[in-house]
Amino acid sequence: MLPAALNDVIDALGRLPGVGSRTAERYAYFLLKSDANVSENIAEALSALHTGVKTCPKTFAIMDASESISPLYDDPTRDKNIVLVVEEPLDIYAIERTRSFTGTYHVLGGAISPMDGITADKLHIRELIERVAEDSVTEIIIATNPSVEGESTAVLLEKLLHEKYPDLRITRLARGLPLGVSLEYADQITLTSALNNRTNL
Amino acid sequence: MLPAALNDVIDALGRLPGVGSRTAERYAYFLLKSDANVSENIAEALSALHTGVKTCPKTFAIMDASESISPLYDDPTRDKNIVLVVEEPLDIYAIERTRSFTGTYHVLGGAISPMDGITADKLHIRELIERVAEDSVTEIIIATNPSVEGESTAVLLEKLLHEKYPDLRITRLARGLPLGVSLEYADQITLTSALNNRTNL
Repeated sequence: MLPAALNDVIDALGRLPGVGSRTAERYAYFLLKSDANVSENIAEALSALHTGVKTCPKTFAIMDASESISPLYDDPTRDKNIVLVVEEPLDIYAIERTRSFTGTYHVLGGAISPMDGITADKLHIRELIERVAEDSVTEIIIATNPSVEGESTAVLLEKLLHEKYPDLRITRLARGLPLGVSLEYADQITLTSALNNRTNL
Repeated sequence: MLPAALNDVIDALGRLPGVGSRTAERYAYFLLKSDANVSENIAEALSALHTGVKTCPKTFAIMDASESISPLYDDPTRDKNIVLVVEEPLDIYAIERTRSFTGTYHVLGGAISPMDGITADKLHIRELIERVAEDSVTEIIIATNPSVEGESTAVLLEKLLHEKYPDLRITRLARGLPLGVSLEYADQITLTSALNNRTNL
């Protein structure tokens, strides 16, 4: 019923996560009403996405295709003796935004989830173990997500790292009350952690 | 901080209506994780949008660029004596989906809104008045939106059409309770219309 070119845009945008046909229609119609260079701009950015981004061979972070190694590893201000381990590349930017970490990163590429076919050998665990020796790492901070998969991955990592490097310091992000969540809404596990890890005032 | 190509996608998608930086990031990262041809597909559809869609010179509906006149006007099954007037091209498809209308359409291209600089001469009113004579129109159905601007536009249209064609039947879409809205949530104006225009059971 709609012009084919408009239908194509609705179908294409409908593939974005959480975008239903109504939202896709709204986006498409907005683009149709806007100047052609708005659509052209988005089209160009999308075409350049995969060619412009590549994975760092050392840390598995994402980086500009022009780089040979992630600047978050290569920069002399980054402390290579401390490695913060995350599941996904974008997790790095959540940590970077805090401006509280000057070590380096290691991206696992997911978390162990046998149901989804993600086993330990699909993650960049071997490369992490190699990095500990190569970069004389003194501390590994495990920052997997607080989910069942993230927890299992953390437990496995701790075991593998401890077996190979008994003296390596292995830490994880603290559990506790997030800012702005009042006690009555906090879940039991978070509250138990907050109580067990209470700090002196 | 992010790779430039990823940043470009986030910026570009952030121009879509209602898409903030978080949503744009989510879309961009989804595209980065997906196969390159998903982004490429969206890019191609967007590039083809403005060249593939044009405005019908008669009804101002949107149509395939390959058509010379809207099929919703040109098709012999469409009754050219009845013209339904809408503000925007997509309004047509809302009516078409009902499968209850076999007349033709006329798109005004907006509603009168002096605050936004949309005055009567910016709308396709003159062309509508010409169509009444050209196509021996017997009824004009005014289907502008139930907003202040839509109402003012309807009143003006009625006045202009009535002046020129005193015998032309001019109607508007009925006001009443929409499906699924209970009485206690209906606004006062809707409820007044529903009461005034009550129908026999």
